[in-house]
Amino acid sequence: MERRPLGPRDVLIEIEFAGICHSDIHVARNEWGGTKYPVVPGHEIVGRVTAIGTDVTKHVVGDRVGVGCFVDSCGECGPCGAGFEQHCVNRVTATYNAVGSDGQVTQGGYSTHIVVTEHFVLKIPGGLDPAAATPLLCAGITLYSPLKRWKAGPGTRVAIIGMGGLGHVGVKIAAALGAEVTVLGHSLAKKEDGLRFGAVDYRATTDQETFRELRGKFDLILNTVSVNLDLDRYLSLLSLQGVLVELGLPENPLSLRAFSLGNNDRAIAGSNVGGIASTQEMLDFCAANGIAAEIELISADRINEAYERVVASDVRYRFVIDAATF
Amino acid sequence: MERRPLGPRDVLIEIEFAGICHSDIHVARNEWGGTKYPVVPGHEIVGRVTAIGTDVTKHVVGDRVGVGCFVDSCGECGPCGAGFEQHCVNRVTATYNAVGSDGQVTQGGYSTHIVVTEHFVLKIPGGLDPAAATPLLCAGITLYSPLKRWKAGPGTRVAIIGMGGLGHVGVKIAAALGAEVTVLGHSLAKKEDGLRFGAVDYRATTDQETFRELRGKFDLILNTVSVNLDLDRYLSLLSLQGVLVELGLPENPLSLRAFSLGNNDRAIAGSNVGGIASTQEMLDFCAANGIAAEIELISADRINEAYERVVASDVRYRFVIDAATF
Repeated sequence: MERRPLGPRDVLIEIEFAGICHSDIHVARNEWGGTKYPVVPGHEIVGRVTAIGTDVTKHVVGDRVGVGCFVDSCGECGPCGAGFEQHCVNRVTATYNAVGSDGQVTQGGYSTHIVVTEHFVLKIPGGLDPAAATPLLCAGITLYSPLKRWKAGPGTRVAIIGMGGLGHVGVKIAAALGAEVTVLGHSLAKKEDGLRFGAVDYRATTDQETFRELRGKFDLILNTVSVNLDLDRYLSLLSLQGVLVELGLPENPLSLRAFSLGNNDRAIAGSNVGGIASTQEMLDFCAANGIAAEIELISADRINEAYERVVASDVRYRFVIDAATF
Repeated sequence: MERRPLGPRDVLIEIEFAGICHSDIHVARNEWGGTKYPVVPGHEIVGRVTAIGTDVTKHVVGDRVGVGCFVDSCGECGPCGAGFEQHCVNRVTATYNAVGSDGQVTQGGYSTHIVVTEHFVLKIPGGLDPAAATPLLCAGITLYSPLKRWKAGPGTRVAIIGMGGLGHVGVKIAAALGAEVTVLGHSLAKKEDGLRFGAVDYRATTDQETFRELRGKFDLILNTVSVNLDLDRYLSLLSLQGVLVELGLPENPLSLRAFSLGNNDRAIAGSNVGGIASTQEMLDFCAANGIAAEIELISADRINEAYERVVASDVRYRFVIDAATF
């Protein structure tokens, strides 16, 4: 694979670490359709700047930087102007398996180098371990955005459904924001970890008492699970004007009764990563609060094995590839 | 039917007008189940105070007052304290077909008199025509609450799906709040009315161009239609962080794709009337802005005929019963 020549606003990054996100697997296996083979996945990338274009002002050679889920947008539309480049109405470009403005298919972070326009390159704050920070570029911002938008903080009660790659980072961020965090896990297997990450309560959703006891309790529920849940049951856990944010992308349509929303004036919302400024804010927040992902660092020859284990939910809590082994 | 004796905090109201809401029909015909026959429907009530209990301070004999969808709540729980009596966690009591704290089944406004605790009795401002104001007690607050919660006003674009009893009041209120209002009607049959009520645009949802042209346009969509719609199509009309509020209560569960929410970080929300203070605020707002419902005033012997016409959507736009004819 060749990267494009360094343009005036481009940054060349020597990749140190690349996280494995479940969506990498969906695309690699064409489970969502539309995979443009050969595909190089990876949208959680951390590395060092090794060269910059003539007009670059945001980064210098030697900076430790990160790249997340997208690498270009028009910069001129309403969402771009409002800092929501991921919702650019003209040409947001995913980090891999998308067609860039040069007509080439983008390729992601399972690689030694990448060239990215400076605006879409984040600064990794010094206090963060670079390998453990890698999953923040997707998992971190995916959880941080809805927690901020829906005002998680002191006095709010937040539940996180599922404590996997996304959920465990959400527990840490929500707790650091000052919210009272409950994990709703399939079982209690990860309870000790959850409490260590900052949750004050951890319940099994297979226990019927959970839904009876927690009825109407939460201001915000983040659903990180990508299978179709009985949403009416989870909505019943929301308090007045509570919001359930759907972060998983299950195969079948969501199904819920209108009464489940009308009771307590509830809402169900979507959230798709975050803009560049917001992602930088998240990285700075995580550095200030000592937050990173719990990772298992692997060499490149173990990616297929790691994929199997992600699908089997057998990882605590995110795989990161050591890019020196490519 | 007997009303309860006047308690110290009760107000006796001589009913002048009672609106016909579609939910009256659902309950009268037991279409939602749970109807406690004999039932007297009616939760849009306007009349005169003719007696007050010894401890009543909010109203005096002769006041023109209104009663909406509920007549009691605990007054002590979180939602009651926050002014959301309709979401009282202990004992919110619907105006009819509910069991009051005295153990009696409540009976609604298709009647000559009603006894209601003073807190749940609204003041009808002098500037409002009392018959035309009657539907505001349910239809008005049903639309006003989500318009206020989701901040409809100058610079916001609001779409209202369906221009019936609910929708036509919504057009008037949204326009008076300063929003740019579009009606999404089944056809263009009521277009002239819609523009007269304050809409700047009126589109037919049977026209495929409507969904293409209005893609990503609206900050807020209020769905007043009670049949199951293709929600993914309507969600595609929402702009960044736009919200669709589901006010109809269709028979089947809502169905939507998670991607429809993730794109543009959208939300779908419920909304169930409004609290007492909010309802009073709505009445005062309507009086100040010359807003009331468009009504067809009927005598009591025409209720069955009116029900048939409501079901057939053959009313512009709300039936109100002249209670002097009971």
